[in-house]
Amino acid sequence: MNYSMESLKEHGVTAPEGFLATGVTCGLKESGRLDLAIIYSEEEKTAAAGVFTKNKFAAAPVQVSKNLLLKSKSKRAVVINSGNANAVAGKTSLDNAWAMVGIASEALDIPKDEILIASTGVIGKQLDMDRIFKGVQQAAKNLTYYGGSVAAEAIMTTDTVAKECMVEVTLKDGGKYKIGGMAKGSGMIAPDMATMIGIITTDAGVKADVFEDLLLAAVNDTFNMVTVDGCQSTNDCVIALANGRSGVSITSDELIDSFKAGLKKVCFELAKMIASDGEGATKLLEIKVIGASSWRDAEMVAKAIANSNLVKTACFGNDPNWGRAIAAIGSCGAEISPELLELYLQDQNIINEGVPVDFDEKKVSKLMDAPNIKWLVKIGNGQHSATVLGCDLSYDYVKINAEYRT
Amino acid sequence: MNYSMESLKEHGVTAPEGFLATGVTCGLKESGRLDLAIIYSEEEKTAAAGVFTKNKFAAAPVQVSKNLLLKSKSKRAVVINSGNANAVAGKTSLDNAWAMVGIASEALDIPKDEILIASTGVIGKQLDMDRIFKGVQQAAKNLTYYGGSVAAEAIMTTDTVAKECMVEVTLKDGGKYKIGGMAKGSGMIAPDMATMIGIITTDAGVKADVFEDLLLAAVNDTFNMVTVDGCQSTNDCVIALANGRSGVSITSDELIDSFKAGLKKVCFELAKMIASDGEGATKLLEIKVIGASSWRDAEMVAKAIANSNLVKTACFGNDPNWGRAIAAIGSCGAEISPELLELYLQDQNIINEGVPVDFDEKKVSKLMDAPNIKWLVKIGNGQHSATVLGCDLSYDYVKINAEYRT
Repeated sequence: MNYSMESLKEHGVTAPEGFLATGVTCGLKESGRLDLAIIYSEEEKTAAAGVFTKNKFAAAPVQVSKNLLLKSKSKRAVVINSGNANAVAGKTSLDNAWAMVGIASEALDIPKDEILIASTGVIGKQLDMDRIFKGVQQAAKNLTYYGGSVAAEAIMTTDTVAKECMVEVTLKDGGKYKIGGMAKGSGMIAPDMATMIGIITTDAGVKADVFEDLLLAAVNDTFNMVTVDGCQSTNDCVIALANGRSGVSITSDELIDSFKAGLKKVCFELAKMIASDGEGATKLLEIKVIGASSWRDAEMVAKAIANSNLVKTACFGNDPNWGRAIAAIGSCGAEISPELLELYLQDQNIINEGVPVDFDEKKVSKLMDAPNIKWLVKIGNGQHSATVLGCDLSYDYVKINAEYRT
Repeated sequence: MNYSMESLKEHGVTAPEGFLATGVTCGLKESGRLDLAIIYSEEEKTAAAGVFTKNKFAAAPVQVSKNLLLKSKSKRAVVINSGNANAVAGKTSLDNAWAMVGIASEALDIPKDEILIASTGVIGKQLDMDRIFKGVQQAAKNLTYYGGSVAAEAIMTTDTVAKECMVEVTLKDGGKYKIGGMAKGSGMIAPDMATMIGIITTDAGVKADVFEDLLLAAVNDTFNMVTVDGCQSTNDCVIALANGRSGVSITSDELIDSFKAGLKKVCFELAKMIASDGEGATKLLEIKVIGASSWRDAEMVAKAIANSNLVKTACFGNDPNWGRAIAAIGSCGAEISPELLELYLQDQNIINEGVPVDFDEKKVSKLMDAPNIKWLVKIGNGQHSATVLGCDLSYDYVKINAEYRT
């Protein structure tokens, strides 16, 4: 490798040079908490890329940002509000999303086409545009080089912690660049409080025409491998900005390797934070599947285990109840030869050649009394692998989702 | 219609003429409850049909019964044990399943090929064959014409109520026949205590070569449309026996219509009982989807809603949180035109032409405080429909599944 990488938490979207951010309270959240964030790049030529939800009921800001990215791959700012998803609320919601772009364009004095927007919060309610107007005005005046953490806080909904991290890549020739990120998300779709949103910034220079592919590859391996409840939101999006301020331009294959690794690292750390902060979660589940005949099969098996309510409750209760995982594997549709299967739980061998091993249940139960639970499945009929991040299912998931609005 | 139909609960597999049954305690359940049942037909020519789990880790009794049905479609008895699923326990489990057939053959004095078996309970443990031997011996001696209810009790695992029902069909010409049934199932796979099992008996005469198709059609519309937690067990099976004792032979198209209707009614009632008795369930959810462009799409939408933990918890909490249903519909892969969609909850219109209607949330919340919750989705781009039965997700689901073994 021709580079080294260092990652740090508590440094997010303003860690890379030339990015400013902030978060303000504009009154969309009844709690009076921060609910509007702006991320801004000082560089006129800042490349942008976005990956958006495939939900047929994609929210208005998702539709608008996709449209804006088709018009131009150069963006200077991202405006995000929490407290209202601006989704499934009729045609007015689309008008409001475009109005939000216009307000930001005036307040930041940049062309409309160079802005992206995102929203998260209650579905089905109209956005209060007076509050958006005041919030954007105020945020535009308060942008700072240290505003990343405040911005990360302003996009939270049912999240219990703000999520940010950064990676610094040092090249062999001494060149350095940073990739920073922030995210929110607690249920894949947390009800009213919808959405997973990720914002990535970098001071590396990235050509707009390859940026989206690089982002999509990183998202597929990280954010798309997180499942809190198997639900896909109307508002999910990941947006990335690259301003080139570091002087490092990602051009050669070697540099692309370093950038891919850095981008994946930032996305993976944020994805882990989302899974750990899953609604009501007490444990992070890491489901690794190897030896599958295709990547798709490996993913299917891992997601079947991670989404099984029976596996999730067993993890909550420290119960090494492997029959639940086996039933999920056997019914998910992947190509499986039962007689080849190996299963490990917390590094303990549970199934070998399809037959249960005589293991110490009490010992494994004790090993499960931990913040991280690892399942490893060896399928044995191929070379493909996948890792999915999930969380357990606790009383608090029911509490949060049954009692949230009532 | 050339027939009338009457259905009764608390009458099950011994309601049709010529069937005997019983349930005994052989010690497979630590609780000392009934754990072995036999259903027996007096008629030498009794046609049989079976529908089995597609799980790749199909349990030994499933493999054996499938094999026995290939050898002959004529069966005299079904032997079922609870307390042990005889699944994923290596080659010995297959030997034990065949031994169970042999023991029943001797005790009942009928050829091995005329027996079917099923098991439900803990996965991954060997069956105690001494107990099976004693249990089968005892049950064979205790068969009675009124043993249906005891048999229904003997196949329970985490079920809180025994499930049985019967339908009497009266033909225009005065001919009568009965279809009886019993079932167990509480989680689709309830952990250790795996499995959904259904046993149907009828004193109508049914040709073996059409029986399986008739059973499969009924199962597809009923048992296969129930989802408690989206998990498919290693042991699921539905077995049907037809002994012809009533003198009515299902030969003409008209008679087939009546038989189809009766069979579907029995299966549907049993399926509803399973959904209502879902682990921790406080409410039955009935999700009806109409106007879809294919049956598969209608089913996908209905199952996406029924399996959404967010919808399930909202139903538990009387929260008319329709955004969760919309997000599930939009991401399930079905062909949807958002602008055509209509959504109803407890008969109240929530979404019209893709736009939320201004409805009284408090009123709908009150309507949701009921044992049955009805969601109706009108897709608007076709003629196909499907109804799925599910249940809410409560604290008790977590309790039952996190604490069951620990």
